[in-house]
Amino acid sequence: MPTKGEITREKILDEATQVFHRKGFLTTTINDLLGATGMTKGNLYFHFASKEDVGLEVLRRAQSAFREFLDDALQGETPGAKLDNFFRQAMERNRSKEFVGGCLFGNTALEACDNAPPFAELVSEVFAEWIGKLQETIQAAQEHGQVRQDLPASALAELVVGTIEGGIMQSRLKQEEGPLKRAFDSLRVLLELKP
Amino acid sequence: MPTKGEITREKILDEATQVFHRKGFLTTTINDLLGATGMTKGNLYFHFASKEDVGLEVLRRAQSAFREFLDDALQGETPGAKLDNFFRQAMERNRSKEFVGGCLFGNTALEACDNAPPFAELVSEVFAEWIGKLQETIQAAQEHGQVRQDLPASALAELVVGTIEGGIMQSRLKQEEGPLKRAFDSLRVLLELKP
Repeated sequence: MPTKGEITREKILDEATQVFHRKGFLTTTINDLLGATGMTKGNLYFHFASKEDVGLEVLRRAQSAFREFLDDALQGETPGAKLDNFFRQAMERNRSKEFVGGCLFGNTALEACDNAPPFAELVSEVFAEWIGKLQETIQAAQEHGQVRQDLPASALAELVVGTIEGGIMQSRLKQEEGPLKRAFDSLRVLLELKP
Repeated sequence: MPTKGEITREKILDEATQVFHRKGFLTTTINDLLGATGMTKGNLYFHFASKEDVGLEVLRRAQSAFREFLDDALQGETPGAKLDNFFRQAMERNRSKEFVGGCLFGNTALEACDNAPPFAELVSEVFAEWIGKLQETIQAAQEHGQVRQDLPASALAELVVGTIEGGIMQSRLKQEEGPLKRAFDSLRVLLELKP
């Protein structure tokens, strides 16, 4: 059973995730976190050393949730079906959030890369893992004749991740699913994906 | 001849552009701007009503500079050559900035869309204009048999912009040109671009 301290810690992280996702890590202040969690400063600092400490823990939790999402989404009878299923689930995942907040990792990438090295490092890890898993599936799909073979799987995996991040950016800006939806539709055609 | 006031105003905007580009509009404080410009608070507020006012003016200047860049880059003997030239110049433009700061519009999109409507609106305008100009060129290239014709020019233009933004994000995170460079190389193949 989790201790009272562990429960409080998780509650802080849950609320902080919402705030960081909406406002960004750098713009969020300790006062924002106190407002969202209903904690006193003393209480918050009992559980975390700093705002950065809360932020990194939020990112680490998001990293493991995203890892689970990837492993769940990359399922199917064939490599092509796995990729197709990932496209569908990634669209669904973003649609259900109604594009508020967008991609926590993409936001953090742009926000943190010049200013906050530990955040940038963690986000780099997430993207490297994401690209790696897609590359593996794309390579298998190429071997099965389910994805075009004239570009290396590594380049295609990198392009897919970049295109999704760009699509989320555009959908978020317009507050409508169109751009991301069309990005997935176009990717299917351009990759010559046969599920 | 510009007046002394106009010169001061431009100087403030020049310095503010650097700071906003590096730190983002929301994270940058009035004190950051005072530090960068060497102004007193009274002086800065003589020229601009607020930090937001400086920020929007910085974005408007960036918008017209980017419009000029687009018109310069989309030049060539044929529509396909125009698109190819744009890809080359967009790569060059980002390489010369060494990926520090990334794309001001992309950063602002992710930073501002849920929090700062006037910024989001201006950035939406920039993206709509960019997509519109690419769409025109891609459509002409399709008519010349220089770009694949099985996807609408509008979808391809939107995908190109999203992919470039995603590529800049990845290049910036890694502090190396590889991801954006490979995104352009892959786009050439996927679009079946014949300059």
